[in-house]
Amino acid sequence: MARLLLKDCRYLRPDHSVGTGDILLEDGVIARIGTDEQSINCPSCAVKALNGALVMPGLVNAHGHTAMTLLRGRGGGLPLKRWLEEAIFPVEAQLTAADVAAGVTWGVMEMLACGTTCVADMYDFHRTGGVVFERTGFKANICAVGRFGEGRLQECIRFTQDWNGGAHGGVIADICIHSEYLTDEAFCRELAAANRDLRRPLHVHVSETRREHEECIARHGRKPLAYLADTGLLDFGGYAAHGVWMTDDDFRIMRERGITLVHNPTSNMKLGSGFARLAAAKAAGVNIALGTDGCASNDNLNLFEEMHLAALIHKGVAQDPTVLSADDILDMATVNGARALGRASGEIAVGKCADLCVIDLDRPHLSPAFDIPNLLVYSAQASDVVMTIADGRILYERGAYAMIDAEKARHDFQAALRRLGGCRTDCK
Amino acid sequence: MARLLLKDCRYLRPDHSVGTGDILLEDGVIARIGTDEQSINCPSCAVKALNGALVMPGLVNAHGHTAMTLLRGRGGGLPLKRWLEEAIFPVEAQLTAADVAAGVTWGVMEMLACGTTCVADMYDFHRTGGVVFERTGFKANICAVGRFGEGRLQECIRFTQDWNGGAHGGVIADICIHSEYLTDEAFCRELAAANRDLRRPLHVHVSETRREHEECIARHGRKPLAYLADTGLLDFGGYAAHGVWMTDDDFRIMRERGITLVHNPTSNMKLGSGFARLAAAKAAGVNIALGTDGCASNDNLNLFEEMHLAALIHKGVAQDPTVLSADDILDMATVNGARALGRASGEIAVGKCADLCVIDLDRPHLSPAFDIPNLLVYSAQASDVVMTIADGRILYERGAYAMIDAEKARHDFQAALRRLGGCRTDCK
Repeated sequence: MARLLLKDCRYLRPDHSVGTGDILLEDGVIARIGTDEQSINCPSCAVKALNGALVMPGLVNAHGHTAMTLLRGRGGGLPLKRWLEEAIFPVEAQLTAADVAAGVTWGVMEMLACGTTCVADMYDFHRTGGVVFERTGFKANICAVGRFGEGRLQECIRFTQDWNGGAHGGVIADICIHSEYLTDEAFCRELAAANRDLRRPLHVHVSETRREHEECIARHGRKPLAYLADTGLLDFGGYAAHGVWMTDDDFRIMRERGITLVHNPTSNMKLGSGFARLAAAKAAGVNIALGTDGCASNDNLNLFEEMHLAALIHKGVAQDPTVLSADDILDMATVNGARALGRASGEIAVGKCADLCVIDLDRPHLSPAFDIPNLLVYSAQASDVVMTIADGRILYERGAYAMIDAEKARHDFQAALRRLGGCRTDCK
Repeated sequence: MARLLLKDCRYLRPDHSVGTGDILLEDGVIARIGTDEQSINCPSCAVKALNGALVMPGLVNAHGHTAMTLLRGRGGGLPLKRWLEEAIFPVEAQLTAADVAAGVTWGVMEMLACGTTCVADMYDFHRTGGVVFERTGFKANICAVGRFGEGRLQECIRFTQDWNGGAHGGVIADICIHSEYLTDEAFCRELAAANRDLRRPLHVHVSETRREHEECIARHGRKPLAYLADTGLLDFGGYAAHGVWMTDDDFRIMRERGITLVHNPTSNMKLGSGFARLAAAKAAGVNIALGTDGCASNDNLNLFEEMHLAALIHKGVAQDPTVLSADDILDMATVNGARALGRASGEIAVGKCADLCVIDLDRPHLSPAFDIPNLLVYSAQASDVVMTIADGRILYERGAYAMIDAEKARHDFQAALRRLGGCRTDCK
């Protein structure tokens, strides 16, 4: 039985008040939480003395394309069509499984250093991706990306069958279509029919751009979310990335069916898509999570930045400082994302999954710690994370990775960059 | 003659291309830049081997209230009036010179750790602030805040006289009024008259909120910027913070008179003020700089965040990814700010002031370094700064401060917090 005792910490409770004491992790689960008065003794445990550092739930990146670390910085500032056609697609066309393995490993290193413990990943070479995520100990909801192409539908179904059942640790497969516009109705209905056995939620891009939103209405007489619901693809839940152009009708369907809106503020601004109507989605009772999208439109995998942006931009749009509280934003980055991905994590409570990160509060920008949720959302940086734990295992601690050979990862990543012509200034 | 040789670095040129070589700093100035072929040898120099780290200009925080580190996190989420009246003013009413000294020292520590080398500071206890800035080696344009109150006008004039002439190292005084609404026309005209001898630029809040902007029109028949120009307060230049509600007329006056718009994106969103029309200001040829405002509306002093936000939000507002390039944003945070504050820094070139910071690019989120300006604006974090240099002196290096006793600073800061009732969870 793997046991880890976190001694002398502060920790964020589910209501975002701050407790102090010890936390015992047993077999990947939060087994006990001590208090200052009743500390936990465990002679057989591995022990980490945290000296008052803050333990919070590991962050959940509910929409990413992890291997796109390989494309970081490509096409910055280009309009969307040129960005895709000149900067992104030509490089993606050259990608090999080895490149994707290197890109995913590098992305996992970045996410672990930022306190993230779980990602919903959508990218090709999904079987390679799955193996890499599993090897690193990182948790991931992966998928075979449904879109036009020979044999794609069959692979979507087969892959989802192969990667469920718990044989792959923290890695599990959901169903996926890239979007309404890269599939047709027959594709969606066949995948939905197969999903009656698989019973998985759908990972999908929805209403990211105005054009996509409006073309779907022209094609199907309905907005993308309603169309997808009609095909049966959302019968077992789902998480819809972007939703910039969603309306109250969409939000009503999402609340009724338990569909999560994954907000990607950096990407939506950097590509000029616009501001998702987050306050309206919240008011409508939609579960909202946060995502980074891929590195080429972000350009990092840092959920502290997404929290920061989500907390600020909607106040700016509404000209109202009371729109979305720091508590709302923290939930989006943790428990709401966990809920979207079917994970029993995102909260520090006995019985929950031990997916955690540790924040060193002893830094100039984190004092006074007058209001911890406010501090985490508005002032903390990803670099304040000093330890990241998934399923009770320390995967990252102050720059060191437990399950990744960082030197080999760097070598492989740079080899891939060189091959892809992406190595201007930083490869030896 | 103080000489420091930065060996084996990459550095950002004024056109944002990246050079490699050595940089020699002599008596606070960039004296020579070597190349890979022609390296610099200097046996009598202090030498720092940078191993390929990136040297960039130190960031310029063109609008701040540094001592408000003491109020970090106060009143988060409250509407503006309640924020001021319930969370901010009651604490500020209790402040002593010792508190402000502690708050400024703490703020300088935070800014140095974020790569900032110079601030335009507006706060009371300005004489205390000036002494503290000078002692830390930090550069600051300080001021006595002009507003209603007995003896205030005289102090504004006297202080500006006292702190000019170069006797205080990198600290210099500008003239200041808090705003149109906390002064009257007589005050402005008298200060402007005295400034015919002083010849200093004006530091001022302008058109931050819609209400303030519209009340000025009602009171004076003109918008705030035009009104201030008419009083003569802008006769020797100036830098206007916020400018959220400025129009093209305002921008025309600013371009003609060389007035800088200081953009404070975090504060403007957090307080619900709105989005400054930055793309229009840029198109009108206005010099644009960046500021953090005070910690209570931010909640940190991190210009990397302000760069990130400034780069993203205006693309979101315009739904156009080509609005404001990474190059534009880097200039705002460096050379434009330096220009606003009358500093010969913000660019790495021979003869410029040696105000610099050093970025460690050897981190997961900074590879590939495919496009350095894009990387600095969209992916870099303040914590990637490993060294900060002002006037050729290393003031900060990997958590250590050359001219600040960090333990004493922490003790004094916590004592002030305790006195102010701001010490909930982090004071021993």
